[in-house]
Amino acid sequence: MHILITGAAGMIGRKLTARLVKDGKLNGQTIDKFTLTDVVAAEKPAGFAGAVDISTGDLAAAGAADKLIAQRPDAIFHLAGVVSGEAEIDFDKGYHVNLDGTRALLEAIRHADGYKPKVIFTSSIAVYGAPFPFAIPDEFHLTPLTSYGTQKAISELLLADYNRRGFLDGVGIRLPTICVRPGKPNKAASGFFSGIIREPLSGHEAILPVADTVRHTHASPRAAVGFLIHAAGLTRDQLGPRISLAMPGVCCTVAEQIEALARIAGPKVAARIKREPDELVMRIVAGWSERLDAKRAATLGFTAEANFDEIVKAHIEDELGGKIA
Amino acid sequence: MHILITGAAGMIGRKLTARLVKDGKLNGQTIDKFTLTDVVAAEKPAGFAGAVDISTGDLAAAGAADKLIAQRPDAIFHLAGVVSGEAEIDFDKGYHVNLDGTRALLEAIRHADGYKPKVIFTSSIAVYGAPFPFAIPDEFHLTPLTSYGTQKAISELLLADYNRRGFLDGVGIRLPTICVRPGKPNKAASGFFSGIIREPLSGHEAILPVADTVRHTHASPRAAVGFLIHAAGLTRDQLGPRISLAMPGVCCTVAEQIEALARIAGPKVAARIKREPDELVMRIVAGWSERLDAKRAATLGFTAEANFDEIVKAHIEDELGGKIA
Repeated sequence: MHILITGAAGMIGRKLTARLVKDGKLNGQTIDKFTLTDVVAAEKPAGFAGAVDISTGDLAAAGAADKLIAQRPDAIFHLAGVVSGEAEIDFDKGYHVNLDGTRALLEAIRHADGYKPKVIFTSSIAVYGAPFPFAIPDEFHLTPLTSYGTQKAISELLLADYNRRGFLDGVGIRLPTICVRPGKPNKAASGFFSGIIREPLSGHEAILPVADTVRHTHASPRAAVGFLIHAAGLTRDQLGPRISLAMPGVCCTVAEQIEALARIAGPKVAARIKREPDELVMRIVAGWSERLDAKRAATLGFTAEANFDEIVKAHIEDELGGKIA
Repeated sequence: MHILITGAAGMIGRKLTARLVKDGKLNGQTIDKFTLTDVVAAEKPAGFAGAVDISTGDLAAAGAADKLIAQRPDAIFHLAGVVSGEAEIDFDKGYHVNLDGTRALLEAIRHADGYKPKVIFTSSIAVYGAPFPFAIPDEFHLTPLTSYGTQKAISELLLADYNRRGFLDGVGIRLPTICVRPGKPNKAASGFFSGIIREPLSGHEAILPVADTVRHTHASPRAAVGFLIHAAGLTRDQLGPRISLAMPGVCCTVAEQIEALARIAGPKVAARIKREPDELVMRIVAGWSERLDAKRAATLGFTAEANFDEIVKAHIEDELGGKIA
């Protein structure tokens, strides 16, 4: 089996590659080749005996997508995209990468005669826009309030039409906020959800810009990779025509996040969180979904962590080698 | 006021132009110019004293949209598009006209400095896809089962993002099936809904390919034009961020359509309908929405006919000069 991953150098792309290398198989078939593409070169995966093609470039550039699928990868994990904040600041870049890039990939697949790969697309809960019901049902309309969310919702519609036409076997997963996101703090409005766990666990202070009562839905990077792999195994019959769906996650308040941190790492670690209310962040976060039903995902066998304690523990295991500072 | 109409040579385009000429005003402002564009030349509207620019061309062609908005029309009715059947048969043409054409228009508007027109977009109930609840609520997701419906849903998302960004004041109306559609019978799967009224009223036989129990939602061409003009008068505050919405209509069965025809034109006219079940048409129609809630449209003041009798009467008045054959 030959697997193409777009956005392979990103956080989820790297973790997905590592997991696939460790598994050695996808859907019971041995993986013998990876094609890893991104705007910067992905690292060669350690411990993989098969072939690895690493390429860099703009998926929306003429011929780029055709070149990537010339060797007809059996499964394509399409993770590439510019993030929410960047798509909001740079209108042209957001549409170019997130919409035109996706469309170019789908068109390249359509034009390859007799080719019908599995395409697993990472969408986002940014496809939803307030006001919301108590919990967002699977049948809720997509009314994004960002250009990023718009581009993801459009890509979902394209994927569904190409799937319906028989050009590919598609599935789209709407990721909740990924927490705990490893790495340095960044300027994303959602950054604090990870920061208030990651920074204290590493011995650093973290800023909490919103109230303890803010409620949100989270899944660990490990769970996100699990969603992608599970999605790749679903059949057309299982999915039906509505191929994009919300993923499960842990729904909790910031207070509950902090309680989990204190339970696992002690009150001294939890005390490293400093409350500095930020009006702008509070206003942005107020427009985000709090709770998702994700009934179809549960029925289709997607699983996430059962509570926030498990999310904290996954971070300590996967990123800190089991050690707390 | 300068008004641009795309798809101006089509049935709704012609009726909208005629109505605007008759009104002389839109939103209380005198209309002094029309720009009418389509793939074939629209007719010069009779009885209009102001300026009329008539152009033909492909909206998606380089520079075409920029040229149309160079004189900065105050209101743009964007009706242009290839119909459902054609978009399904010709994949490339459907995406070129219905998606790329719309995007080119929006991009031309975005690039015109300090310009912020009112854009009224005709979407369609084809954005919905079965299975449906008893009545489709305003919050129901868009899961189109045709490429046409996909292109309309994507255009709605683009319009909402360009509206949110402040590039234009947008509104999208999801038209129900237009009935009674004037003109010759055509091969559209929905054609019989109009054919069973129009043909008998003109002294001709009509074929009914589905069961009497089939339920659907209809609005007259006159009502559709009314929706467009009403939509043009709605403010950003009234619409909020969810600027595309389902329109009201008359929800009835085919049997109720035929009863209305018999009541108004007599049983002899209604007897001109011949039942010839067609498996293909039955299967297509089974995937269509039956009933829409359209609560927001009612709240925002959109009105349609109260019953199917009024739809039949509107056709007799508007198309037959009041006479039944």
